[in-house]
Amino acid sequence: MLSETIAFLVEIDRLKQVDRQTKIVGERRRENAAEHSWHLAMFALVLGTRFARVDPSRVIAMLLIHDIVEIDAGDLPLHSRNVNLAAKQEREAAASQRIFGLLPPAEAGQLLCLWNEFEAGETENARFARALDRLQPLILNLQNGGGTWLENDVTEDQVVERYGSEIEPSSRELWQEVRGLVSRHFQQNSPNHRAQLKEA
Amino acid sequence: MLSETIAFLVEIDRLKQVDRQTKIVGERRRENAAEHSWHLAMFALVLGTRFARVDPSRVIAMLLIHDIVEIDAGDLPLHSRNVNLAAKQEREAAASQRIFGLLPPAEAGQLLCLWNEFEAGETENARFARALDRLQPLILNLQNGGGTWLENDVTEDQVVERYGSEIEPSSRELWQEVRGLVSRHFQQNSPNHRAQLKEA
Repeated sequence: MLSETIAFLVEIDRLKQVDRQTKIVGERRRENAAEHSWHLAMFALVLGTRFARVDPSRVIAMLLIHDIVEIDAGDLPLHSRNVNLAAKQEREAAASQRIFGLLPPAEAGQLLCLWNEFEAGETENARFARALDRLQPLILNLQNGGGTWLENDVTEDQVVERYGSEIEPSSRELWQEVRGLVSRHFQQNSPNHRAQLKEA
Repeated sequence: MLSETIAFLVEIDRLKQVDRQTKIVGERRRENAAEHSWHLAMFALVLGTRFARVDPSRVIAMLLIHDIVEIDAGDLPLHSRNVNLAAKQEREAAASQRIFGLLPPAEAGQLLCLWNEFEAGETENARFARALDRLQPLILNLQNGGGTWLENDVTEDQVVERYGSEIEPSSRELWQEVRGLVSRHFQQNSPNHRAQLKEA
């Protein structure tokens, strides 16, 4: 009987209506959590095992489901202030029970287990998934000339703190490469650099 | 060096701008090919091996990449008429070379191989991926009271032909369940049935 599985697959369609802060490349609009999840899975597929000793298919499964709780709990922007983390975690845990609980027990249990592993961030797979969840919006921001960093007056130090804190624990090598891109972005967008370009 | 991989990951962001015909549940707007690909991967994740002897992680990888060629070639609606299939295949093959070719050779080769397997539809994995690629818009149409079937005057026989032809070869059992949902939809939406409801 398919009815429970279909009810779940219809319910998660709503993730296509959960908007995030990051804009798609070219800045036409903000991306939603469903297309973000697809993009992240593609990051895992092509970065694979190059930077971490992981099982790519488990990382991909984690990334496909990691934001589904936002259907009930909403997206919490990375650069928002005065966040009540405990309340957020409570809302998301309740959402995970309700939404994954639509599935037959075996599948519900598997997805809950995956989601809890992602949230805890203690396994190599979860750490790599969390690293990619920071890497993707970072790449989009670089591509959009600053993106949410400009909108929120985010400094280079804050980028290092907010993105590096999730990327570096998974792979120092990956973070070193990305750190270089971030430095170059802030150098090229510093007031001094822009003044020099104007003079030239 | 990450630069080629990042160039690919930035390029495929454009899949978020390729619109399909099917509308998201609630019919607020048409879905795009990126969120469609995410939804399909979720179908594979929760239907897993229940209906076909497949490697779910390979099916998921196939579904994540199957529409990327539409960045260059566009989406061809299932119910469009007078389609030049040879020209479509040529455009998509050229797109696969250009877009997957942005990656380093090893990763480019892997994704091209996956995409060709999906297109050929000869392996169990590809057949199941193709079945899900029909099942997802079918479920959304049922949920939206007919969706693209209403818009294109599609009959029950045409649904059986256009969707069943991809779902049944992968799993007769899955198609039997889905066929029942389709019958019920067309019964409930027949002019006779609507007239009866009005009288009652």
